[in-house]
Amino acid sequence: MFTPATADQRFVLETIVRLGEISEEAAEMTDAVLEGAGQFAAGEWAPLERLGDTDGPKWTPEGVKMPAGFAAAYQAYVEGGWGTIGSPAEHGGQGLPVSLSIAVLETLGTANMGFALAPILTVGAVEALMHHGTPEQQALYLPHLSTGAWTGTMNLTEPQAGSDVGALKTRAEPVGDGTFRIKGTKIFISFGDHDMAENIVHLVLARTPGAPAGTKGISLFLVPKYRLNADGTPGEFNDVRTVSIEHKMGLHASPTCVLSFGDNDDCIGELVGPELGGIRAMFTMMNNARLNVGLQGVQVAERATQRAVAYARERVQGYRGGEQVAIVEHPDVRRMLLRMKAQTQAARALVYYAFGQLDRARAGDAEAEKRVELLTPLAKAHGTDLGNEVASLGVQVHGGMGYIEETGAAQHFRDARITPIYEGTNGIQAADLVGRKLSMDNGGTLLGLIGQMRGDAEDTGLVNLIDACEQVARNLLSSEANDRLAASYPFLTMLSTAVCGWLMEASGRAAARSEGDPAFLRMKQAAARFYVAQIVPEALGLMPAAMAKAEMLYAIDAEGFAA
Amino acid sequence: MFTPATADQRFVLETIVRLGEISEEAAEMTDAVLEGAGQFAAGEWAPLERLGDTDGPKWTPEGVKMPAGFAAAYQAYVEGGWGTIGSPAEHGGQGLPVSLSIAVLETLGTANMGFALAPILTVGAVEALMHHGTPEQQALYLPHLSTGAWTGTMNLTEPQAGSDVGALKTRAEPVGDGTFRIKGTKIFISFGDHDMAENIVHLVLARTPGAPAGTKGISLFLVPKYRLNADGTPGEFNDVRTVSIEHKMGLHASPTCVLSFGDNDDCIGELVGPELGGIRAMFTMMNNARLNVGLQGVQVAERATQRAVAYARERVQGYRGGEQVAIVEHPDVRRMLLRMKAQTQAARALVYYAFGQLDRARAGDAEAEKRVELLTPLAKAHGTDLGNEVASLGVQVHGGMGYIEETGAAQHFRDARITPIYEGTNGIQAADLVGRKLSMDNGGTLLGLIGQMRGDAEDTGLVNLIDACEQVARNLLSSEANDRLAASYPFLTMLSTAVCGWLMEASGRAAARSEGDPAFLRMKQAAARFYVAQIVPEALGLMPAAMAKAEMLYAIDAEGFAA
Repeated sequence: MFTPATADQRFVLETIVRLGEISEEAAEMTDAVLEGAGQFAAGEWAPLERLGDTDGPKWTPEGVKMPAGFAAAYQAYVEGGWGTIGSPAEHGGQGLPVSLSIAVLETLGTANMGFALAPILTVGAVEALMHHGTPEQQALYLPHLSTGAWTGTMNLTEPQAGSDVGALKTRAEPVGDGTFRIKGTKIFISFGDHDMAENIVHLVLARTPGAPAGTKGISLFLVPKYRLNADGTPGEFNDVRTVSIEHKMGLHASPTCVLSFGDNDDCIGELVGPELGGIRAMFTMMNNARLNVGLQGVQVAERATQRAVAYARERVQGYRGGEQVAIVEHPDVRRMLLRMKAQTQAARALVYYAFGQLDRARAGDAEAEKRVELLTPLAKAHGTDLGNEVASLGVQVHGGMGYIEETGAAQHFRDARITPIYEGTNGIQAADLVGRKLSMDNGGTLLGLIGQMRGDAEDTGLVNLIDACEQVARNLLSSEANDRLAASYPFLTMLSTAVCGWLMEASGRAAARSEGDPAFLRMKQAAARFYVAQIVPEALGLMPAAMAKAEMLYAIDAEGFAA
Repeated sequence: MFTPATADQRFVLETIVRLGEISEEAAEMTDAVLEGAGQFAAGEWAPLERLGDTDGPKWTPEGVKMPAGFAAAYQAYVEGGWGTIGSPAEHGGQGLPVSLSIAVLETLGTANMGFALAPILTVGAVEALMHHGTPEQQALYLPHLSTGAWTGTMNLTEPQAGSDVGALKTRAEPVGDGTFRIKGTKIFISFGDHDMAENIVHLVLARTPGAPAGTKGISLFLVPKYRLNADGTPGEFNDVRTVSIEHKMGLHASPTCVLSFGDNDDCIGELVGPELGGIRAMFTMMNNARLNVGLQGVQVAERATQRAVAYARERVQGYRGGEQVAIVEHPDVRRMLLRMKAQTQAARALVYYAFGQLDRARAGDAEAEKRVELLTPLAKAHGTDLGNEVASLGVQVHGGMGYIEETGAAQHFRDARITPIYEGTNGIQAADLVGRKLSMDNGGTLLGLIGQMRGDAEDTGLVNLIDACEQVARNLLSSEANDRLAASYPFLTMLSTAVCGWLMEASGRAAARSEGDPAFLRMKQAAARFYVAQIVPEALGLMPAAMAKAEMLYAIDAEGFAA
């Protein structure tokens, strides 16, 4: 039931990311990497997907136990070198472009979405240490994190500090030797504990004594589950306890932990970056994580689509021209399937394009750096919105069987639902778009993208949408904060759809002139046509909401919502 | 956490249904009925909601056992007379208009959606026997079904016969005494077995010997779980066995059974209506059930909205004007909450309006009869689509807590997902709209509604949408079947939104001139304004898809979808 999306990954890397411009070496390795990752994911990770859902990780007093087979499958991932693809060469990685490494991550997550959260979080820890760690921290931790031999976590949320991370209370008291004693409770910590790796490296936001209130008073700490011995091997337990794991609607393969740091006043952490520099370091982890969550939207959309297509081709029901046919032949089922194909490909194009800009930014391209910043909230929010839409259509294509857990479509629907929430809710992404991102260069970054899209666009509907985006953007630039926020989500969807339309139109053109598997190239063109003809116009329908003032939302007071 | 939606129910019954025109007596009883039902549902059914989800019905060799407390709560429903409100007076019911009885059903389902499926199915059985049963069948069964003392089921689906009910294989062999021996397996039978009632009355579609293929060869049979003794009391077991119950994503309180009829060749049924008249009788049950499933969309939307509003008013996170505030104060949270309020009220207006037309039809109004036929696919499909959208927004408002099962928002999201599937998938509803319903009076029924809406509409955007619906309708009337079907779902959403916009605009006007609770009336006006200003324009974005030909969906073949 799982097939790696190798053909489309290759196509997008070549035509949208233009990987060859980033690294010729990587472009040459693409086929080998994608096919190897596909075989590995199909052989080792996909078979555990349902078990992870039905019989997920269990809390025990000795720590969290993963379901049978997960530790071995994770070990195979480490030994296969799949974690090292995008990791820095100077710390044991292969140093390949992130756009190629995320193709591997996509394949792993399409095979087993919850499981693949472990590598995603580890990559976040690698990023944080790469950019903010001391040479000693890098030398001690990065070789192990780069391979995935040790895993990483992000510890931000506390019960009273969710979207408002500045409200966190975890404390870090200086010990006197440069280290800190950590005390506090963190919630919603994905893979906060498990039995698949020798050590777990927690990156923990906490407050030092006398630190100012809010986000300015936050510092980032490196808190290993086991402290390192002099030789760098994991040693003494560092007083980090898993208090419980959450009972979630989906993504059961990923243990979501409540972690208690320093119950016995014996949890030691080291600063990562300067004191009070936590929020900056956190954004390093988080921006990467946000793009990777957008990629989870692609993963679940791809898998849900594959499952629905297979079912629709197999399930015979109803007639056409007097013959019994499989349901794939019925117009409205085709509409759903083609929409699933188009939205999945649009999400992949958007997220990969953003990662491609990240690669260019790392190579010193300042414009690309701004563009990936601008695109990050789009990739995260719209990528996950599409993942949810496609997973829901996947259930619908299955009819009654879609509601039966054994079929598998329901799991994708449940798994997908967390992605618009974590790593900054999609509402937070929309606020980021109309706040910091819109303001970059006084709107110049966004208007530059809009100008480029308008120059390329051929379809009239797409041009209309791009024009509408410009009109909304200019309006928002002169609007006050409340009005910007009230319009933020409709605008995010309009702009994301315009970007996807621009990339899908380009894909269609590229497919028309490419040589290769004719069935694949015809499918790409059909998906692109459908996207531009039917999905792009829907986003134009959001224009009135994107131009509206906040006033309408405040016509009643808080109590009025309960009337 | 559960509050009956009494204020809006009363408002809609008065201003949209105009219940007083249907029955003055019923209009006078409205307050007493709504408040009594609300108290009953809050006291007896709502407390079991979570238990029904976490510890649902269990299969045993002796039959399905409901969770603790359900049998007693069901008995309280029967004894309170809540089942009898809309049942025929000549068979022990109160004979009140269906529009009032469904307000009671809504309240029960908002309190406990899965549980309320038992009454919905029983009402379907009452309808079938009322219209097609013999006087003797009516005398024997209706008094018990009317009160809910016995429950009813609908047995259509078989493994190879889902949307294509004509493919069913269950057989009915004449015994010689006018009865039939039933043999076959039915799947997806809601409340196919349970331990809450003395008897269960299965209405079973089956084929008699020599019957033609397809739907023309189907007859409807009355098959009680226990045959009736001479005195009409339940007696001997009728060889109907529950083979298993499904493991579903949600709606766990409702046991979804696989029923085996006549394993020991000892299952006896009686014809309901003439032999080969099964499909007509089935539609009697099903039309009613479709409207009631639309009502389930209202139920889950109402409950999800209540939960999200309560959470958003309580959860303090982030700042406005330097003060920490509850999240209800943030613009994008308000956008979600106001959308939830507006969509819930729109769904309620649509479904209640359709039921009001049903009441008028039953009183002999031929135009109303056509209108309820036209509106049934809209109420079912769009009502359930809105239920799903609202339940998803409810999860989102909760942030990370929405993904934790204990919070309750996730249950609504899982429960809602079956409603666009059962009782005819929403795709089947769309096909019904562009097929039989569009063709009524050569389009005259639909164009009549469109004309009336245009005459009332004030907002320019709403007028544009109504005009667009007319343009699409006229185009579809002259299109061939494939093109009609390809456009069916976008058209269904456009037309449903136009009808909701028309009813919401009317609600806003009525609220402006009404006297009563000012907070409620302000909220109604705010929801109406939001609906017309922001939701109506979205539907205009579907116009290109509704005008497109099927060709685009057939640009690739079935295999191409796997490319």
